[in-house]
Amino acid sequence: MPLSPEQQAEIDELRSNPQPTLRAVAPGIEAHLYKARQVLDHGFVRVVDYMGDDAAICQAARVSYGRGTKSVQNDEGLIRYLMRHWHSTPFEMCEIKLHVKLPVFVARQWIRHRTANVNEYSARYSILDREFYIPAPDHVAAQSEINNQGRGAALEGEEAARVLDILKSDSDRAYDNYEAMISQDDQQGLARELARMNLPANIYTQWYWKVDLHNLFHFLRLRADSHAQYEIRVYADAICEMVADWVPFAYRAFSDYQLGGAQLSAAALDCVQRMVKGEAVAQENSGMSAREWREFQETVGS
Amino acid sequence: MPLSPEQQAEIDELRSNPQPTLRAVAPGIEAHLYKARQVLDHGFVRVVDYMGDDAAICQAARVSYGRGTKSVQNDEGLIRYLMRHWHSTPFEMCEIKLHVKLPVFVARQWIRHRTANVNEYSARYSILDREFYIPAPDHVAAQSEINNQGRGAALEGEEAARVLDILKSDSDRAYDNYEAMISQDDQQGLARELARMNLPANIYTQWYWKVDLHNLFHFLRLRADSHAQYEIRVYADAICEMVADWVPFAYRAFSDYQLGGAQLSAAALDCVQRMVKGEAVAQENSGMSAREWREFQETVGS
Amino acid sequence: MPLSPEQQAEIDELRSNPQPTLRAVAPGIEAHLYKARQVLDHGFVRVVDYMGDDAAICQAARVSYGRGTKSVQNDEGLIRYLMRHWHSTPFEMCEIKLHVKLPVFVARQWIRHRTANVNEYSARYSILDREFYIPAPDHVAAQSEINNQGRGAALEGEEAARVLDILKSDSDRAYDNYEAMISQDDQQGLARELARMNLPANIYTQWYWKVDLHNLFHFLRLRADSHAQYEIRVYADAICEMVADWVPFAYRAFSDYQLGGAQLSAAALDCVQRMVKGEAVAQENSGMSAREWREFQETVGS
Amino acid sequence: MPLSPEQQAEIDELRSNPQPTLRAVAPGIEAHLYKARQVLDHGFVRVVDYMGDDAAICQAARVSYGRGTKSVQNDEGLIRYLMRHWHSTPFEMCEIKLHVKLPVFVARQWIRHRTANVNEYSARYSILDREFYIPAPDHVAAQSEINNQGRGAALEGEEAARVLDILKSDSDRAYDNYEAMISQDDQQGLARELARMNLPANIYTQWYWKVDLHNLFHFLRLRADSHAQYEIRVYADAICEMVADWVPFAYRAFSDYQLGGAQLSAAALDCVQRMVKGEAVAQENSGMSAREWREFQETVGS
Repeated sequence: MPLSPEQQAEIDELRSNPQPTLRAVAPGIEAHLYKARQVLDHGFVRVVDYMGDDAAICQAARVSYGRGTKSVQNDEGLIRYLMRHWHSTPFEMCEIKLHVKLPVFVARQWIRHRTANVNEYSARYSILDREFYIPAPDHVAAQSEINNQGRGAALEGEEAARVLDILKSDSDRAYDNYEAMISQDDQQGLARELARMNLPANIYTQWYWKVDLHNLFHFLRLRADSHAQYEIRVYADAICEMVADWVPFAYRAFSDYQLGGAQLSAAALDCVQRMVKGEAVAQENSGMSAREWREFQETVGS
Repeated sequence: MPLSPEQQAEIDELRSNPQPTLRAVAPGIEAHLYKARQVLDHGFVRVVDYMGDDAAICQAARVSYGRGTKSVQNDEGLIRYLMRHWHSTPFEMCEIKLHVKLPVFVARQWIRHRTANVNEYSARYSILDREFYIPAPDHVAAQSEINNQGRGAALEGEEAARVLDILKSDSDRAYDNYEAMISQDDQQGLARELARMNLPANIYTQWYWKVDLHNLFHFLRLRADSHAQYEIRVYADAICEMVADWVPFAYRAFSDYQLGGAQLSAAALDCVQRMVKGEAVAQENSGMSAREWREFQETVGS
Repeated sequence: MPLSPEQQAEIDELRSNPQPTLRAVAPGIEAHLYKARQVLDHGFVRVVDYMGDDAAICQAARVSYGRGTKSVQNDEGLIRYLMRHWHSTPFEMCEIKLHVKLPVFVARQWIRHRTANVNEYSARYSILDREFYIPAPDHVAAQSEINNQGRGAALEGEEAARVLDILKSDSDRAYDNYEAMISQDDQQGLARELARMNLPANIYTQWYWKVDLHNLFHFLRLRADSHAQYEIRVYADAICEMVADWVPFAYRAFSDYQLGGAQLSAAALDCVQRMVKGEAVAQENSGMSAREWREFQETVGS
Repeated sequence: MPLSPEQQAEIDELRSNPQPTLRAVAPGIEAHLYKARQVLDHGFVRVVDYMGDDAAICQAARVSYGRGTKSVQNDEGLIRYLMRHWHSTPFEMCEIKLHVKLPVFVARQWIRHRTANVNEYSARYSILDREFYIPAPDHVAAQSEINNQGRGAALEGEEAARVLDILKSDSDRAYDNYEAMISQDDQQGLARELARMNLPANIYTQWYWKVDLHNLFHFLRLRADSHAQYEIRVYADAICEMVADWVPFAYRAFSDYQLGGAQLSAAALDCVQRMVKGEAVAQENSGMSAREWREFQETVGS
């Protein structure tokens, strides 16, 4: 997705003209503003606006806890405390607005996160561009044999090539026919709201997406996770980098407590307590099913 | 969408076995339970569960207003009062759960209503069926010339036939290739989460959708409206009929105050007041733009 | 609520140090930032942060409608179109964060607006100040005789004085006893989370409240309305002035279409259509109940 | 809170008249319907309505995962899998409606859970009853010295007695004056919406509260936690018992994975992995702050 000269010129202009504000300014995210971060073959994420910074989280927490929070020595300690104890409302005091270009099948997963604001390009109103997601060859993977909801190894050369051929030629034909149906040359063009139904789920759409930091962390915890589909995970990974630059304390706490941590069940916690005391614990005396025990072993690395 | 004998047998079994409950029961909606109401060529809506009835709305309102609501003589009068004065919370005390089968492009509009609960069939996990929405010939319409977001007259015979040919053959080819890619005959099948991207937006999906009555009314006001796309409006119309049987007082109030009513701006209200007094009002002295004046005339029928 | 010298110094410092940003800047609201706008006797509203402006609403709408929106000549026309046709999502792209000090009974009404972010001063954690709302004498009003949920004329001098005496002395005694219970002089102080239960609903609390513009308009429509309780309406009125400075086009459209407009039911619309044609309509042939007819007459001024 | 004979008669009548329904029926919660479960001195919780059961959770999950979920042998296994892997949407398919009577300071904490529907008794409209929460003597506790947001040991006899005296006499005086102000004997009564501001936060209010099971679990995880204030925890505990009877599989999974489990940070997880391998880990080489280390030791019991 090399930017067109027009797009680059527009970004350059937006970035050339800083204006004074009395609001909190987060220098780390100012550096990202308006720039398009490429994702997949034609997609991107770019920060369009933001509100708040690490200090805004602490400011909101200190309204809640009043004089009490004086005892917490510094902002990062306070933010870690809030994260550790599920005090989520101060994180809601930060907000970010992104412009995202993404394949429709990714958009369909993304939109399931309901606590956000969205304005999507309307294919009832406007004509979609001829841009389709075609995976890179090493991401053309087989159905996983152990996980119904995942992929296994990459397909071999010829098999992968066949898949890519199909995806490309079906996308092209679908778009050719979309154009033919809406064309007004020598015919009444079909309504756009109908013609779009011929387009496959790998076509790109775009939207503005605005979300508060607490709900963004929830999105990232699920979508930057290794079980998430690759094509949405790359967007989540790109956003993680931006958030790390925007609110570095909050991102570090999130990364430590949520992305990199683990949730133990009561049975798992009991096993850990016994193991730490030196007791040998096996599935039979763990109180866990075989499946839970296998997941537990992966977690504690025993 | 004739039901398969298995589906009909399942519905019959579910309906043959009433059980006693102490909860409020709404006979009008019990009659709909589990039955599939056909919508479009392969879609349906069916009521899977519900909570509350007209009396539950009044019961909640009377908790709020205590002794005060004694003055309202009857349930229907109270419900109309609540609707008229934007007292929306009592309507939230009713809830309905629907099973809907619908084309993906309709699902994409529907999901924009965020205050609802959804479980959709997962094409990462499972294989979609070969079922596509193909419009009836008289719904193959041209792009509207006056409204960017709408359709005009139905296409003439040959033009419509060409469109239907394209939609059918592209759907079939896309599905053939979907099947070919995931097949495990003599090859490693492509992961389902990737193969699905070849499928066009007229393929059918299905979901459970649960929503409270206030938010359902909001959905119906927008989607049963004449500006809504035909393919979602038919679902809204089908749901309207079910709601009318479920909570007849509330539905009548909704229909009178929202579906059939009109919102006047301050300028429009001023014009109405002057017109009712016998004054002649034209666009020039209306305080409205030409476009607003045209919409106003359509509303008051002058 | 004269600001303390310390508070004024803090505001002066915050306002003295503009920083460059690449984000959209709305000059009208920058002028309000951090300044406390007095409301009631000890309350205030102040803008702590904001995101977006009128242009951001249009930018989001144009993402949705793509090339189509080129036809709308200007930003204000587009914003009025969006408001008139219930296109609410572009308004969600603006966000504002307020610091509000308000009596607890007002806070209890305010919090019913759920689509917002809140951090409230915690009386579990911290000690509340001795600040109580005591109405100005001309706002000490009798129970309305026609509206169960409203107030009538102001009380006469001696009656009003008696009420004010009660409110003041009960507030003072409650706070004296609150202090006595939590005191650690010669005793173990009672837990704050318990002691606070002695405090009446006219004590002041404070919170940060963050909301998007669409949901703020919904709040203002209900709370700046003449049926809202005076003590919350003055907050809504103060916020209206701030919003008018922040997003002047959007506020004007809101004011015209929602604050100053009217919702007509189907029956009312039918009457208007008949009256405009010159027909004499009375309650008997209006299709409305006596109560609805009375409200209708107030609306159309007949 | 002994029920009045009238209340008991109303409950008896509601419970005496089961009606047939085709909906899913959960026998365990039918046994609770309408009965008031006493909480605190004058409060209660009672189930007014519900939708769904354990099977409804599985049914919704199986819509999502289609044929795939056949591999999970039984409903309880599927529910545990969903809980373990943050698949929260199937739990949203169950809904419960409670009638709760509770002190205002508890209501103020409770209402912070925004994803729920509420109709509260209106003190603008109606007159509140003379019912105040007065703690039992063994719950009159000192401010905690180690936790700003908690309570320590119960106060000694005389100190506790003094506190109870204050709470009782201030409540009584506040209510006497409330009644005096709104009285219409020989005076124009003060508007209820004003008079209520004299009432302290231990007065009882009541509301209908409707919530889906996922959000109810979130509420219970925070409010049945040992860090929650006692006066809201007793409500959460009472609701836990009802939910255990309503959806026993889901409640057991919730209890195991959330109520009884623990969240480990990345640093804590690393320590557990090292300890399980037999390594001695102390705060110095743990990567944790002193405070985090202390909390970690409490968790793993080392």
